[in-house]
Formats: sequence, structure tokens, C-alpha cells
Amino acid sequence: MFESAELGHKLSKEAYKKIEPQLRADLLDAQFALSRDASFPVIILISGVRGTGKSETVNLLNEWMDPRYIHAHAFDNPSDEELERPPMWRYWRALPPKGRIGMLFGSWYTAPIIDRVFKRTGAREMLAAIDEINHLERMLADEGALILKFWFHLSKKAQRKRLKEMKADPATSWKITKRDWDFFKMYDRFSRISEHVLRETSTGHAPWLVVEGADPQYRYVTVGRTLLEAMRKRLNRKDDRKLRITQTAPLVTPVDNLHVLDKMDLSLALPKKKYTADIKKLQGRLARLTRNPRFMKHSVVCVFEGMDAAGKGGAIRRIAAALDARLYRIIPIAAPSDEEKAQPYLWRFWRYLPRKGRLVIYDRSWYGRVLVERIEGFCSESDWMRAYSEINDFEEQVVAHGGIMCKFWLQISKDEQLKRFKEREATRFKQFKITKEDWRNREKWNEYQKAAADIIDRTSTSCAPWTLVPANDKNYARVTILQTLAKAIEKTL
Amino acid sequence: MFESAELGHKLSKEAYKKIEPQLRADLLDAQFALSRDASFPVIILISGVRGTGKSETVNLLNEWMDPRYIHAHAFDNPSDEELERPPMWRYWRALPPKGRIGMLFGSWYTAPIIDRVFKRTGAREMLAAIDEINHLERMLADEGALILKFWFHLSKKAQRKRLKEMKADPATSWKITKRDWDFFKMYDRFSRISEHVLRETSTGHAPWLVVEGADPQYRYVTVGRTLLEAMRKRLNRKDDRKLRITQTAPLVTPVDNLHVLDKMDLSLALPKKKYTADIKKLQGRLARLTRNPRFMKHSVVCVFEGMDAAGKGGAIRRIAAALDARLYRIIPIAAPSDEEKAQPYLWRFWRYLPRKGRLVIYDRSWYGRVLVERIEGFCSESDWMRAYSEINDFEEQVVAHGGIMCKFWLQISKDEQLKRFKEREATRFKQFKITKEDWRNREKWNEYQKAAADIIDRTSTSCAPWTLVPANDKNYARVTILQTLAKAIEKTL
Repeated sequence: MFESAELGHKLSKEAYKKIEPQLRADLLDAQFALSRDASFPVIILISGVRGTGKSETVNLLNEWMDPRYIHAHAFDNPSDEELERPPMWRYWRALPPKGRIGMLFGSWYTAPIIDRVFKRTGAREMLAAIDEINHLERMLADEGALILKFWFHLSKKAQRKRLKEMKADPATSWKITKRDWDFFKMYDRFSRISEHVLRETSTGHAPWLVVEGADPQYRYVTVGRTLLEAMRKRLNRKDDRKLRITQTAPLVTPVDNLHVLDKMDLSLALPKKKYTADIKKLQGRLARLTRNPRFMKHSVVCVFEGMDAAGKGGAIRRIAAALDARLYRIIPIAAPSDEEKAQPYLWRFWRYLPRKGRLVIYDRSWYGRVLVERIEGFCSESDWMRAYSEINDFEEQVVAHGGIMCKFWLQISKDEQLKRFKEREATRFKQFKITKEDWRNREKWNEYQKAAADIIDRTSTSCAPWTLVPANDKNYARVTILQTLAKAIEKTL
Repeated sequence: MFESAELGHKLSKEAYKKIEPQLRADLLDAQFALSRDASFPVIILISGVRGTGKSETVNLLNEWMDPRYIHAHAFDNPSDEELERPPMWRYWRALPPKGRIGMLFGSWYTAPIIDRVFKRTGAREMLAAIDEINHLERMLADEGALILKFWFHLSKKAQRKRLKEMKADPATSWKITKRDWDFFKMYDRFSRISEHVLRETSTGHAPWLVVEGADPQYRYVTVGRTLLEAMRKRLNRKDDRKLRITQTAPLVTPVDNLHVLDKMDLSLALPKKKYTADIKKLQGRLARLTRNPRFMKHSVVCVFEGMDAAGKGGAIRRIAAALDARLYRIIPIAAPSDEEKAQPYLWRFWRYLPRKGRLVIYDRSWYGRVLVERIEGFCSESDWMRAYSEINDFEEQVVAHGGIMCKFWLQISKDEQLKRFKEREATRFKQFKITKEDWRNREKWNEYQKAAADIIDRTSTSCAPWTLVPANDKNYARVTILQTLAKAIEKTL
């Protein structure tokens, strides 16, 4: 893969001087078109060996274009806030919004490669990391991001020469540390492993662009032109995504129309007295669990979904009552803010992931993508079809990082919903809870039930299973939910 | 101050049971009214001695109301991201948006009181802290926040008893640590200092509400009713702020109409050759300064203001060209996002304050409040009149925490502006830079000049001085700016 980047590519200073002004003006034009259009972000990854002028190149791009609309991020040691979330959290934080260019030094490739070079991880772990990266980039591309991944390369001989030169030059000698020579000693292994990673992650939607790093003029023009061309192409084919013929495999529709939700026994109920005793006990159990010192190594993510009036709010309040208010946060999901709209749909859920020792309860969640957005046509079929695996990836990352994930689907019968709607309309302080939209959604009951069944089928995984809660009886539902949550925490601690 | 909270206030369980259901329903109603209205946030501070049931009270409020719209925050040890910003940054981060209730455990009072109790700070430092707090709360109230500060009190005897009880009860014994007894030993001093702080910070717009903490029923109902009353009062007098007669002192208007900007020599210029040599040298100097290890203990905040077409963007690019792209961020200030609109106007500037070792360049800034917002009437006279000291407070905090602040006003003549407007219209790739709004603003030239002169007079402080830059000649302006910045960093390092 690196052969073409060891040919000794060069561009004379004279040639560069001729090319530069026009390239610069064109890049600026493209940047403003991107900014005006604001329908997609540009994500540029900057990777490669030491001494290849990575930061010089980025600095020059900043000089050529308008740096006000470029966000450069370097990923050194993670902060403690970052360490307490899944590793990808810091990258999600740094994603550029639509219309902007983000340049990521380091990126999600650094740790997997370095860890493998120094044998801190095995081959299997690296394969898993590659898999995770491919899923992430696929998702970003599907969400509309233009992704360019530059790899700056130098042959072994050229790198040795470069490091020596830098060491000798008083202007750059401070940049070369023992760590650089330690890395250089591993050149062959580094090269082999990088090549493997590049090969496995070079895709049509996020290709690797290997650039020989020896000659600055060659490097600058290559990167500049590649970026320009990619932006232009994308800006000219804005509707590309919509025109694309998406071949989405059909979901299984049971011919007898029997869904997993239909088999639930909604008659399950709990007498008031038993409920009062049980819920108190469960709340005490939850209180003790979340005060357990071992809990500080974990975090809890709860998800509540279900038809309108299924009793989500009431159940959430029963959990909250057991917890120290300092430890939890409830995120009610309504329309996204404009900052959230400028990002991939999962971004607004990533941003609220809890630190260690904390709980976050999502009142409705990322499943909106495959429920309301699917049914109301707010996104295309291919968008919601891919969401299932994107969601599974997301949840897997949370759990892999010590997160405890509990997902509750509260199921009521259509009659019970009607009863509750009417009650709400009749009760003064519950009127705010019932809107025309609720009635409209009710007309689509069957579609929602079908979508819910698909959700269960496709996203109930061993690490993040769904709990189907019969909720015609609120007492039964609440006790079931607190029990499930307490058990899940106990199992982990 | 604490006498009334040592009377042994009590409420029987029976009385509580009678009061609770209605109070609860009323609080929920008020919360939804707040949520629908969404014109102001409610900020509740929870402070006081140990063992007074602070967290129980907050938990109960969460139970009574809808916890989805309450944000509770505890401030334990700051994270490293917080430590690298001014101390108030973590509180700004946690402010509830309009329509929501924020409950802050700890808050900005904790450190000043504890530090003084344990003599880590002197009396003068505490006075300064009190001053800073009063300014902050005044600003929050002026921005519309409803602020309630609860202080939970116990007499010395009652606290000793309470700690012993908690220690003896297996359910709470883990809560009582050596630290609690260390604090208890300081009861008298703690009490004396707290009283002083409370007295000095109890204002009409942010009063302290001392609550005896011994009896839970008394405590719950007192807090609940106080909160309810305050929310109701405020919701019923929504237009209170607008109706308020504001007596703003007039600014000094020179009778000879001579402003500080008029005395600038706009003919200052630099020949191209000298400019090219100078700017290269200055950029090198800046590059070295920001790579100096000592720079890692500081951060830089640059502010660019000036009439349209004064050359802000060009100057910013010349600074950026000297810097490692990983170290700086440029924040172009345009219309606020909806998340920003739901916060005090300074919030969106606080959020971008740089970490240590980083630079942030604001392309237009918080001075918009006293420029465009003043002139276009986007805020009331009392709003922009108070902004001067709010801005001074903000900048002082940045500088006190090791920040280097450089504020540039780029001044051009009215003729020069016309020339540049016409050039922009004529040049294809500069057309985006000139809009109808620019022409409209130009008509208000004199008003802007007057507002700018007021800014200089009222916000050019020794810790954050303005640099007035004659900018008819771009070369001269850019060299002046880079020189000023380099000198400011040198002086600090």
C-alpha cells in the first residue's frame, strides 16, 4: 500500500508557486460554498508516521482557507471526563457540524495501531477495533459526512534522515524526543500493522489517501487538490444521497401477523397493598446499590419507550425517588436543538452519556429513529434500516465501557390507552399531557406496534436486552421495572 | 441570622399529611407553567451544615415535581477540564436553561466559606469572593433568573446530636466520616463566617432563605412553599422586568463631540517590504512563544471588534498562520443557537473559554451587547448599561486565572470603509463578504463610533486593556496586532 508513497515524489518550488494562488482561491470558494450549503460536514483525519509534516500541512490548509470555519482537534491524553465515557465519546464531541471542516489529528485510529505495535493488544482485539471503526465511518458517511483520511508516509530510510535533520536543526530539535526513536525502532512492525489497518478500513465512502511526506510542495498540493476535488464533487451532487438507489433488505413480516408484543400477558397486575410494600423495598435496594462503592466503576443508562400514556413518566419518577438527585439525570427527548440538528442523529444521545457512578434515564431515545421517524417518513427507508445496527454498535460501546443498559418497552392495550387519554382530558392537571398529536399517533397504532416488534427483533442483544413490560396495570409495570434495574446492577457489581 | 432557625420549628406528621397533596399538585402546576412559559430559569442553591437533610429535601422536590425538567448538580472535586478554566466555569456549565429548574448542591459559596474556615484564605480574599458572587447573582437576576438560596441550619447541639444519630444508624453510618467531625470541631468559626457571607450576599434579587434543618416535615413544607410562592409570583408578573423603572445613569457625552477614536492617526502605514519582513519575524516570535513550556500554564483570549470591513478576518488569519492548528480555535460570532438563547448572554462566550496552553480568538464578541444590541435596540438600555461591569467581571476572572487577554478595536475611516465595500462588490470571491446589512450599519456610523468610545472608556481595564489599531493600512494594523499579542504573552511568561 505504501509503495507509491516511496517513489520520491517531488514538486519544484517554481511549479508550486504557479499552482498555489489558484488552488488557494478555489479552496476558499469551495469552503464558502460548503458553509452556505451547510448540508454536510467535512471530516479530515490526519495520520501517519513522525516527521512527515502533518501539522505543517494542516496549518497551511488553515492559512489557505478561512480558519474561522475549520475546527482542528488534537487527541492527546484523554481528560478525566473523557476517560469516564466510552473511548469514542471524545471523537463524537469533536465532530464538526454541517457546513464546517473538522481536522482530527490522531483520531480513532491512533490507539488501535499503537496498542498493537507495542503488543498491548492482541490480533483479535485489533480486528474488533477495525470493525468498530468501519461501522462508525459507515454511519458518518450515511449521515452525510464527507470523510477524507490522509496517511502521511515516509520510507524507513527517509524517516531516519528526517528525524536526524530535525534533531540537528535548532528550530525543530526540541520536537524530537526519545519516544520518537522508540517508535522508529518499531518502524517495520508499525508499517506492517498500519498497512493492515489501512487496507481493512479503506472504503468507498471513507478511503485512505496515502501521501508521500518527504517533499513539502508535493505534499501540500496533493492534499489541497484532493480536498478541493472531493468538496467540489460533493457540492455538485448534493442530491446524490437521495438519488442513490438503496437496496434495503425487507424485514421479516410474519404471515400470521403475530408479533412478540401480542404474546404479552397484559392482564398481569399487582394489588395496591403488595405494590406499596414491594416498591418501597425495591427503592431501598436501588438506593443501597447506587451507594455501593463498586457502583463508582460503572454507569447506568435506562431507556424508556412505549406508546403514549403507557406510564413512562410515572415509572421514571419511581426510579428517581430511589436515587440521590446528584447522581442521575433524566433526558426527555423532544425536538432536537439546532446544534443537534447539525450533527448525526446519535450525537444528542452521546453527549449526555453519564460519567462513572452516575445514571442517565432517557425518556424516549434514539429508538425514535426506527419508530416515529420511520412511521412519519422523517427519514428515508435506508436511513432507518441502517439505524438498527448503528444503535447496536452504540449500545455495545456503552456496555463494553462498564455501562449497565436497561431498555424498557411499556406495552398497554389499545383500550387501556383510550381509557387513559380520556382520563387525562378530564383531569385538570393532566390536560397538558394529552395533545392532538397523541390522538394522531393512536390512529397509527398498528404501524407503531409493527415497528416496535422490529425493534425488539433487531436490537434486543445479549449486552443490551429489551425488557417488555406489561403496563396495563401501573403497579405491576413499576415493580417489574425497578426489579429489572436492581437485578441488572447487582449482576454487574 | 440563624436565631430563627434554632427555635425548634416543627410540623406534625398529621399536619404534613394534610398539606402535602395540595402543595405537591401546586408545585407541579407551577413547574409546568414555568416550562410552557420558558422565559426564565429557576436557580436553587442548596447549602448549609451537615446532617440537615439537604439531599433528602432535593430528592423530595424531585419526587413532587417532574424530575425530567429539573437538573440537579453536585460540585465535588472539579474535573481537569474544569480546573483549566476560571473557577466559575463549572457553574456556568451547569446553569439551567429558561423554563427549567436547576438545583446546585455546593455552588459558588462552598469554596470561599470552607477556604476561609480553614484559613487557607485571608479576610481580603473572602471579600473579593463575596464581591464576585454578588456581581454574578446580580447579573443572573438581571438576565431574568429566579434565584433562591436555601441555607439549612442546625444549632451546635442539634448538629452534634444529628451526627451521632446518623453514626449509630446502620443505614446512614457510612455517610459520617472523619471529615464531618473535623468540620464539626470548627462549628463556631464556620457559623460565624457563614453568617458573614450570608449577610453580605443576601440581596433583594437573590435572598438567602435560612431553614431549620432538624424536623423533616417542617423543612420539606418550608422549602416547598417558598419555592411555590416564588415561582407563582414570578409567573404572574412576567412583565415585571420590562415595567421596572430603570434609572440608568447617563454616560458622559463630550460636549465638543471629540471621542478617543477621533484622535487616532489613521494615516499610519507600513510599506509592503517592511511589512513582509516584520510579519514573518513576528509570526516566528509568536510560534516560539506558544511552544514555550511555560505557555502551558496560561491561555490566550483574543477579541476582535471594529466596523465592517476593518480587516478583522485578515488580521486573525495572520495570527492563525503563526500557530499550531491544534492549539487555537476561532469563534466567529453570529446569531446565537437556540441553546445559547436560553441562557444569559455571556454564556456562549464562557462555553468556549480555552484550556491551558490554548488560544481562542473571538471574531466579534460579548461586546455585541454594547454595540449592535445597544444600537439596534435588541436589549433595553438598562441591559446594556449593566453589561459594561458584567463584561469587566468576566474578563477579570479570565485574567485572574492565568488568561492573557488582548482586545483589538480596528479603526478605519468612513471613506476607507466605502472604498473597501466597493472593492468587495467588484471582486467575485469577496462578494459574500458584503451584504445589505453592512450598508445599513454604515448609515449608523456615528452611533457605532459613539458606542465604541463608550466601550473603550468603560472596559479598557489594566487587566484587559483595549488596543486601538489604526487600520486604514492593513499592513500597519496587522503588524501592530501581532506585536501587541506577542508582547502580552512575553510579559506574562
